[in-house]
Amino acid sequence: MLRRGVAWSLHRFISSVNLYTSRSHNCGELTLENIGQAVTVTGWLAFKRMDKFLVLRDAYGSVQATLPKTLQTELKDIPYESVIRVNGVVADRGKDRNNKTATGMIEIVVEKLTVLNRAAVEMPMLPEARTTERTKMKYRYIDLRSSRMQRALRLRSQLVHDVRRFFVEERQFVDVETPTLFRRTPGGAAEFIVPASQPNLGSVYSLPQSPQQFKQLLMVGAIDRYFQIARCYRDEGSKGDRQPEFTQIDVEMSFTSQEGVMSLIEDMVVSSWPKSLENLKPTGPFPRLRYEDAMRWYGTDKPDMRIPWRIQEAHPILNNLASDKIVDSKWVVRLFKCEGLGNLSVPGSLRKEWKRLLSLNSRETNFAVCSPQKKHWFNFVTNREVSRAHDATDEDLLVVAWGSCKSVQWTLGQLRNFLAEAANLRSRKEIVAHWVIDFPLFTVEDNELTSTHHPFTAPVEKDEVDLKSTRKLPEIIGQHYDLVMNGVEMGGGSIRIHDADLQAHVLEILKEPTAEMTHLLNALSHGAPPHGGFAMGLDRYVSLLCAEGDPSLPVREVIAFPKTKDGKDLMSDAPTIPNDEQLERFGVLIEAPSANV
Amino acid sequence: MLRRGVAWSLHRFISSVNLYTSRSHNCGELTLENIGQAVTVTGWLAFKRMDKFLVLRDAYGSVQATLPKTLQTELKDIPYESVIRVNGVVADRGKDRNNKTATGMIEIVVEKLTVLNRAAVEMPMLPEARTTERTKMKYRYIDLRSSRMQRALRLRSQLVHDVRRFFVEERQFVDVETPTLFRRTPGGAAEFIVPASQPNLGSVYSLPQSPQQFKQLLMVGAIDRYFQIARCYRDEGSKGDRQPEFTQIDVEMSFTSQEGVMSLIEDMVVSSWPKSLENLKPTGPFPRLRYEDAMRWYGTDKPDMRIPWRIQEAHPILNNLASDKIVDSKWVVRLFKCEGLGNLSVPGSLRKEWKRLLSLNSRETNFAVCSPQKKHWFNFVTNREVSRAHDATDEDLLVVAWGSCKSVQWTLGQLRNFLAEAANLRSRKEIVAHWVIDFPLFTVEDNELTSTHHPFTAPVEKDEVDLKSTRKLPEIIGQHYDLVMNGVEMGGGSIRIHDADLQAHVLEILKEPTAEMTHLLNALSHGAPPHGGFAMGLDRYVSLLCAEGDPSLPVREVIAFPKTKDGKDLMSDAPTIPNDEQLERFGVLIEAPSANV
Repeated sequence: MLRRGVAWSLHRFISSVNLYTSRSHNCGELTLENIGQAVTVTGWLAFKRMDKFLVLRDAYGSVQATLPKTLQTELKDIPYESVIRVNGVVADRGKDRNNKTATGMIEIVVEKLTVLNRAAVEMPMLPEARTTERTKMKYRYIDLRSSRMQRALRLRSQLVHDVRRFFVEERQFVDVETPTLFRRTPGGAAEFIVPASQPNLGSVYSLPQSPQQFKQLLMVGAIDRYFQIARCYRDEGSKGDRQPEFTQIDVEMSFTSQEGVMSLIEDMVVSSWPKSLENLKPTGPFPRLRYEDAMRWYGTDKPDMRIPWRIQEAHPILNNLASDKIVDSKWVVRLFKCEGLGNLSVPGSLRKEWKRLLSLNSRETNFAVCSPQKKHWFNFVTNREVSRAHDATDEDLLVVAWGSCKSVQWTLGQLRNFLAEAANLRSRKEIVAHWVIDFPLFTVEDNELTSTHHPFTAPVEKDEVDLKSTRKLPEIIGQHYDLVMNGVEMGGGSIRIHDADLQAHVLEILKEPTAEMTHLLNALSHGAPPHGGFAMGLDRYVSLLCAEGDPSLPVREVIAFPKTKDGKDLMSDAPTIPNDEQLERFGVLIEAPSANV
Repeated sequence: MLRRGVAWSLHRFISSVNLYTSRSHNCGELTLENIGQAVTVTGWLAFKRMDKFLVLRDAYGSVQATLPKTLQTELKDIPYESVIRVNGVVADRGKDRNNKTATGMIEIVVEKLTVLNRAAVEMPMLPEARTTERTKMKYRYIDLRSSRMQRALRLRSQLVHDVRRFFVEERQFVDVETPTLFRRTPGGAAEFIVPASQPNLGSVYSLPQSPQQFKQLLMVGAIDRYFQIARCYRDEGSKGDRQPEFTQIDVEMSFTSQEGVMSLIEDMVVSSWPKSLENLKPTGPFPRLRYEDAMRWYGTDKPDMRIPWRIQEAHPILNNLASDKIVDSKWVVRLFKCEGLGNLSVPGSLRKEWKRLLSLNSRETNFAVCSPQKKHWFNFVTNREVSRAHDATDEDLLVVAWGSCKSVQWTLGQLRNFLAEAANLRSRKEIVAHWVIDFPLFTVEDNELTSTHHPFTAPVEKDEVDLKSTRKLPEIIGQHYDLVMNGVEMGGGSIRIHDADLQAHVLEILKEPTAEMTHLLNALSHGAPPHGGFAMGLDRYVSLLCAEGDPSLPVREVIAFPKTKDGKDLMSDAPTIPNDEQLERFGVLIEAPSANV
């Protein structure tokens, strides 16, 4: 242990990562420069050979040590993954030098070997061993020792720190913590509840899905520039690659504009980009894509722009696909062309997932993947005619869909992603960032209007008058912007409504209870500046970075203690059946349907 | 708005706080150097005079503007706290220069005045106005505009950032986020519960009181050096100056020792100390005080070391106070002397609080505050004799207590604080930090053993064998250390037990169910390094800093959106009565005692 005073004077000589510890060096830093030095190294027993050599591993690397005869029987009995300390002298490996690993030129000649904590002889898994996802989740503390998880958590830590440096040091934002025990928000069906005890027995807090209201209130409170790495909660059961708690980079600014916030976020991304991924760093400004164009060309509002294929109208030669079914003007025949992918074979696993996903589309849509191998794409026209009409060769693939417009676009959008994945275009080491802008303020679903994003988004100025006209509502454009990277929605933001009357009017249009929003409406009428902001999904962002652009890495790979898809922590076995003491304290009765206990 | 590209090229000329906004300058930065410049400034209408002058305020300061005749009628109708934009030219105030404020040398001659958002004519409060605590909590977004809250939140943000810089940049710690939806922990009566929905209906998560288990698991996972600014939860109702959610600086390190962690924390405090409070900065190492000595000399384990008085045995001349009551050997007569405070008068408000607190002591304790004004302190001895025996003069105050030892120490400890407060010693601008060490591992209460801190604390090495002997348990010293500043416990930490058998044994001694701790015991047996850490109460720390050493500033003064003592958010009216949709989703019935709804 480095005692105080000693620590200070050694500062210049000791790597800061060893300060305050009992080691003189870590397992990753010994080189030929240390030859002859007496060292103390601690770590996990990763490997042993002939009871004569051992490899010690810690967070920073691994190092080989050789044992004198006197210590060899001792080593025999130490199980792998035991924590040990080695005192010894650094020696040159001589003819056994290995320059492929950082410490491969040297070894430690052990003088003393101390077992600090013996591991179980039967380990349920080893750090780098292949095992099931379930085992890795249950023994997460072992899995965390893997280079994979060490890299992910350290990359995340550094990224978050660089994001903070950007905001606090370079742009003078204020890091403000907002509460997570809050009130129910309108439409907040997916909010977890937290029952209160005395003196509030009978009431519940809600865990907010984002600090949205608080950050707006901070603007009303003249904080001017707010940011927070904020914990958020959403009870979504097993919906995709999501966790019940997640983290977002949360930002809000006063007296700004849509372009202002977008520039800020671009600067943040570029400024905090990981040094180890310098070759993938995007440059600002990121391209802006209008929502309408995104839907038209790519069939989705979050297209992967690394994929070079655009949806286009089919040549009239394919009109037959529509002719007998033209029920309304929205019936279309469209396609995209995958140049050079004529021989693409789709792996079975992907094909299965593809079928599952396409079946989600309830509307009747037909599609054909026209590959050169197939003899007759359509029975009313030859392959050659179709190819020629679309400027395609024998090397290309044509993907055609016909049906109602919305449905065709959705189908082609999905197929575009799937075929790109099959062609390994999505795992390519490249990160392309772009904005999607000009979203409609409202979305019409089953003849009901809902907010495309949330009820606090302001319309673009010129459309504000249209809020008075029910007929024009669906055409109003919102001041909302999404940041998309490689087909993943990284985050979104908007300029907010700062006028109390306008906000109340929008809530009425949406049939949201204004009574639940009194505090916000009050705040807007007590001196609210114009303001806007952004929220970026940190987990998703880090996982895209860790995977160097491949959007398929699950977020649990960048979270220290994730939950399974169905919200369970396999390690500690949470959630648990409550005990009587808990139920009584919070005045709660929990109905446990027998099928679920 | 500064458009992209423009923003970059203007970097050198524009304060970074104005980047991405519609202002050219903020309200706090215009000086004589800006004379003649056309500027755009935004902010709140803080003051107007004769409809000719106005003062505009924002987060960075305030600035005066003068209106040409044409705009004066317009100003008349704008309510205070409205948000406005002013375009104008900076002019010298000439003979009206005021060098007491940052922008007092200049004024803006307004060319255009734009109301961005009109405030209500009847504001419930104004930012700097005196009003009730309740009103300030309800209209927190107005209170946040006060210089008091602006300073607190900005000081907090900068401090937290500097703490992070210390850990990440200077000491290579990894910032890891740990879950807040966790399982119940043994003895965790004060944990909030979060009912789970499908597919876990019938189960609950618990909101952890600290990341204690996770940070230990991270050490088992070879993270080596962990830190986090962590949100924690404790359901304590209206217990003192506490919030149901609070924040701690959470740290853990492997292969370290008690002195190692203490040095780390000292370095953190000194390295991240706010620049604006440089004059109060402590220097490390902080003095170490043994628990036993703290209790003996100050009657508390968190003494305010700015108070110069020490408890001592009374001279035998006062033995009469004990003589007829010597029931056991623990009956004592003790006192402390307040030099030079003979004429101290205790304000009524303080006296009331003092009585309330002393009445909490159930054991019979007598005490006397012997001031020169009082004629007869005791009836068996003269004042002069008592004074002389204790080397006191007419200028001094003697505070005597007699009764059972524990009770006398507690009483004198409380009186020491109260009299120091009455003498304005506690509000003095000075911050004294020290450690309390050598705590007993267990505390005996009603013949039951409990952990003095928590069941994961390791005993000092030499006492480890005593864990086998029931009789010796109360004498075992733990490797625990508390950091105290000005009589406030800022944080505590310990070296943890890393041996699974030892941990199981301690849990058994404490009669804690080991079944609920299987995951931790498993982890300790799968390669756990020796480790230890610390947790520091951020809210308390920031409030002591904001108050420049006065420990009486409530933590809500450094929290953006605090709750009241009884856990309510007066602004949004949380918690709320749950609606049917919520109850159904989580399968919950809530018993609301009619008296509480």
